[in-house]
Amino acid sequence: MPSFTVYKGSKEGKIVKAQTTKDELKDDQVLLKVTASGLCGTDEHYKGADMALGHEGAGVVEEIGPNVKDLKKGDRVGWGYEHDSCGRCDQCLSGRETYCPERQMYGQANLDQGSFASHGVWREAFLFKLPDELTDAEAAPLMCGGATVFNALYSYGIKPTDRVGVMGVGGLGHLAIQYAAKMGCDVVVFSGSDNKKDEATRLGAKQFVAMKGKNELNIGRPIDALLVTSSVNPDWKMMLPVMAPNSIIFPMTVSFDNFEIPHLPLIQQGITIQGSIVAARAVHRKMLAFSALHGIKPIIMEFPMSESGIEEAMSTLRDGKMRYRGVLKPQ
Amino acid sequence: MPSFTVYKGSKEGKIVKAQTTKDELKDDQVLLKVTASGLCGTDEHYKGADMALGHEGAGVVEEIGPNVKDLKKGDRVGWGYEHDSCGRCDQCLSGRETYCPERQMYGQANLDQGSFASHGVWREAFLFKLPDELTDAEAAPLMCGGATVFNALYSYGIKPTDRVGVMGVGGLGHLAIQYAAKMGCDVVVFSGSDNKKDEATRLGAKQFVAMKGKNELNIGRPIDALLVTSSVNPDWKMMLPVMAPNSIIFPMTVSFDNFEIPHLPLIQQGITIQGSIVAARAVHRKMLAFSALHGIKPIIMEFPMSESGIEEAMSTLRDGKMRYRGVLKPQ
Repeated sequence: MPSFTVYKGSKEGKIVKAQTTKDELKDDQVLLKVTASGLCGTDEHYKGADMALGHEGAGVVEEIGPNVKDLKKGDRVGWGYEHDSCGRCDQCLSGRETYCPERQMYGQANLDQGSFASHGVWREAFLFKLPDELTDAEAAPLMCGGATVFNALYSYGIKPTDRVGVMGVGGLGHLAIQYAAKMGCDVVVFSGSDNKKDEATRLGAKQFVAMKGKNELNIGRPIDALLVTSSVNPDWKMMLPVMAPNSIIFPMTVSFDNFEIPHLPLIQQGITIQGSIVAARAVHRKMLAFSALHGIKPIIMEFPMSESGIEEAMSTLRDGKMRYRGVLKPQ
Repeated sequence: MPSFTVYKGSKEGKIVKAQTTKDELKDDQVLLKVTASGLCGTDEHYKGADMALGHEGAGVVEEIGPNVKDLKKGDRVGWGYEHDSCGRCDQCLSGRETYCPERQMYGQANLDQGSFASHGVWREAFLFKLPDELTDAEAAPLMCGGATVFNALYSYGIKPTDRVGVMGVGGLGHLAIQYAAKMGCDVVVFSGSDNKKDEATRLGAKQFVAMKGKNELNIGRPIDALLVTSSVNPDWKMMLPVMAPNSIIFPMTVSFDNFEIPHLPLIQQGITIQGSIVAARAVHRKMLAFSALHGIKPIIMEFPMSESGIEEAMSTLRDGKMRYRGVLKPQ
């Protein structure tokens, strides 16, 4: 019976160390030792809930269940959520089981374990072999952050000839710049100040726009797709005039507020607002292969996997000081 | 030199009769006698502007310019806006010149004439031959209203096997029901009360949902596409739970407010918000042929083409009493 440490949220909003015990491995279950976990903004959202946190895992297979087909002890794997897909609805049958309408909450199967942990028991079906080109700490943030921006760029018809805007250079934005640039897109970054200009350029941006103090933007050719990765709603008075007709906007940050945009230009310019979640498994695999092929990696800050380490990582993120994705590592 | 009567908005918000004079017909210009004009909600928006109103025209060719190729005197035609497309930008080159970013305002070429008029001079390129199956009064409302809902249903990947929701049974909604039903879709109508249930059913709806007094909807299979044709923002607390994952929402009513929708379900369910404008010419032609083939017609109320007739039609629309599209006819 596997028993291991997990880090949970709590009603008091503090990170709490706890123990999870699982039955003997059955079917395609795999016991994993966590070697790294990314920190995602949504972990912060669930800090007040009595559930295990972390959904950007990297680790090593320690033991396999009776029906595991491909994985073996010692394999390096990554994982996000295990989805409790119903396997019958249109959504699940089309391979996009990240949101099964019958199960809700992303069909998330496990609330008693996450990647903020010493170990975990996951189904082989939801584990991804990690490519040699990525270390565990580099791979972990791709499991949600990387998969989320890749899915937007991959699944909604964006073309290599498109001009892609990335608003915000942070955990998602600094990955979006790399993916879009390597896909051949002409990447324009929108940021508050000039602070991150050099970094954005190094990551693949062809143009960098510092928004602060501006009333109007002159960026030349308009944007075909905009990934909004900043936590504040864009100033549409500035942004809509630089959007091309029939362009697509992805509001990527998870927020509990309303998304708002002026009605008239939305209609007149034929703009698409596209809600996009973390990638389905088929897309997730392509994301990992693409990252390995092109050397796309997150820029990370490491913290110890402990109650205080998680709290410190979260406050760094909250204060806007993460450069650019936090990774927790067991000591 | 053609000279004719037009009806304009004015700073005082009153309909004003005026005279427009045009140069001799040149190139592919055509002189038309207006026989019917639809009234669109946006005409009301421009009632306070010093411009000619009406963009749902039907009429007869009276005279043709030197380079007119197909039309001849006596032909029945319909028209919406004449677009002043630049002919060079990606948008115009792709045949979607309804919004040319270089020209703005839909690239609308004419502010001194519209379909609220005795006559007009329009380019042959922006005139559509009317099918025999439609009278002028029936065809006129299709030029904007019909083209707008048809474009949404036709241009964004909606399939015959989809469940399509139509919110609001009015000028747009009663046409959307017909188009979607004839495309094979399973049409669900959302309306305030039960008043329009029989009509909606007759037009092709398979299910009718009266929203008033409800806190929750149980409609069975969720909606793959929702056309919001009502003038108020939907109650998303009720509507989002009946939307399928990866479904598409069209906010169709022209409003000067913000479009608002809760952020989290938008992302989790992978929903698309699609701004959609009146059809490009290639789609407009298909709309007319499809309407003729399937006997799709607006239900109309007729008013005289005069200052008082236009005012009366507008107040009928404003009071929510139009059943379902107003048509102005010269006396």
